[in-house]
Amino acid sequence: MSLGEIERLIQLLARLPGLGPRSARRAVLQMMKRPETLMLPLAETLRRTAETVRPCSLCGNLDTGDPCAICRDPERDRTTICAVQEVGDLWAIERSGAYKGLYHVVGGTLSALDGRGPDQLNIAGLIARVDPAENGAAPAGRRVDEVILALGTTVDGQTTAHYIADRLAASGVAVTRLAQGVPVGGELDYLDDGTLSTALRARRPA
Amino acid sequence: MSLGEIERLIQLLARLPGLGPRSARRAVLQMMKRPETLMLPLAETLRRTAETVRPCSLCGNLDTGDPCAICRDPERDRTTICAVQEVGDLWAIERSGAYKGLYHVVGGTLSALDGRGPDQLNIAGLIARVDPAENGAAPAGRRVDEVILALGTTVDGQTTAHYIADRLAASGVAVTRLAQGVPVGGELDYLDDGTLSTALRARRPA
Repeated sequence: MSLGEIERLIQLLARLPGLGPRSARRAVLQMMKRPETLMLPLAETLRRTAETVRPCSLCGNLDTGDPCAICRDPERDRTTICAVQEVGDLWAIERSGAYKGLYHVVGGTLSALDGRGPDQLNIAGLIARVDPAENGAAPAGRRVDEVILALGTTVDGQTTAHYIADRLAASGVAVTRLAQGVPVGGELDYLDDGTLSTALRARRPA
Repeated sequence: MSLGEIERLIQLLARLPGLGPRSARRAVLQMMKRPETLMLPLAETLRRTAETVRPCSLCGNLDTGDPCAICRDPERDRTTICAVQEVGDLWAIERSGAYKGLYHVVGGTLSALDGRGPDQLNIAGLIARVDPAENGAAPAGRRVDEVILALGTTVDGQTTAHYIADRLAASGVAVTRLAQGVPVGGELDYLDDGTLSTALRARRPA
């Protein structure tokens, strides 16, 4: 039985996170029911995305232009940079619509266990954007006066945040973090102890 | 923020069964990390599959050739046809390696609720393959002498099996069904009552 093409498609799809061989097979069977309306557009969009979307050389966001649409946008507040671990975190903050500054994708966290040091991350790029003097480069446009560290609240994420805050200490820029506490819509009963005690310690007048 | 291309890709991926918007986003972010090794090959395989894979005009299997590789294979037993609901069921039986005859994809089940009658399924095609006289066509090659009804053990599946068995009664062909009982590796404790009582009624000498 020469299911070569289909088998290869299933194997490729099964490598996506969230899909195993079984669900990849199901996806292929459903797509084959309407190749023109789903399969071909998907093929074309994948190809175009792979060929045109690149990381922004300033902030690391993924976009078809470089610098990306956010870095180019004259409406964005260029005095604030929000440092995130991954592009997905940047997208999450964009979806919230609550932030109008620039971003910097660090590209992960420092990790002693996985052997990831500062050189494996794009931390130097962030320092250079905040404090151009350190790199000997002339400041481009207005000066950054706040860096928001929106890194994960894991041990590695917080280690990375500490490290970046230390590196930025000399620059005189304000370094802030996201507030920690009870998520909106969160049931206290289901919250972990760490979040609850953080929220208690950081309690504010009602 | 003009994430046009990426947003469109996420929307298309999210239409696959098993993927929602969230996992589609995660899949896109992972693919973007290595566009050359996963994204472009996936695009190319999708395109080729959509353009070359078609349902077999004899049995309904999906393949790049018509008739499909199974219908063309001279090694397969042409006296037995296994009727299945969907192409996925055919693949499942092929993976078992336990069957060497031909197939017929019925394309679903009869369903009074969903308004699917015999004309919406490929039942006439099965009758014609078994009993060419009924269609006035000359028998091509050796005669079929068994039809295995490997349809789902749902109410609709069994209704469809009954209907097909009735239609085939006059042809003199043997009509059989898959055995029902305890699945191999199945824990009795987790089995539903229906399967257990079927397995009890159909008990055999040890």
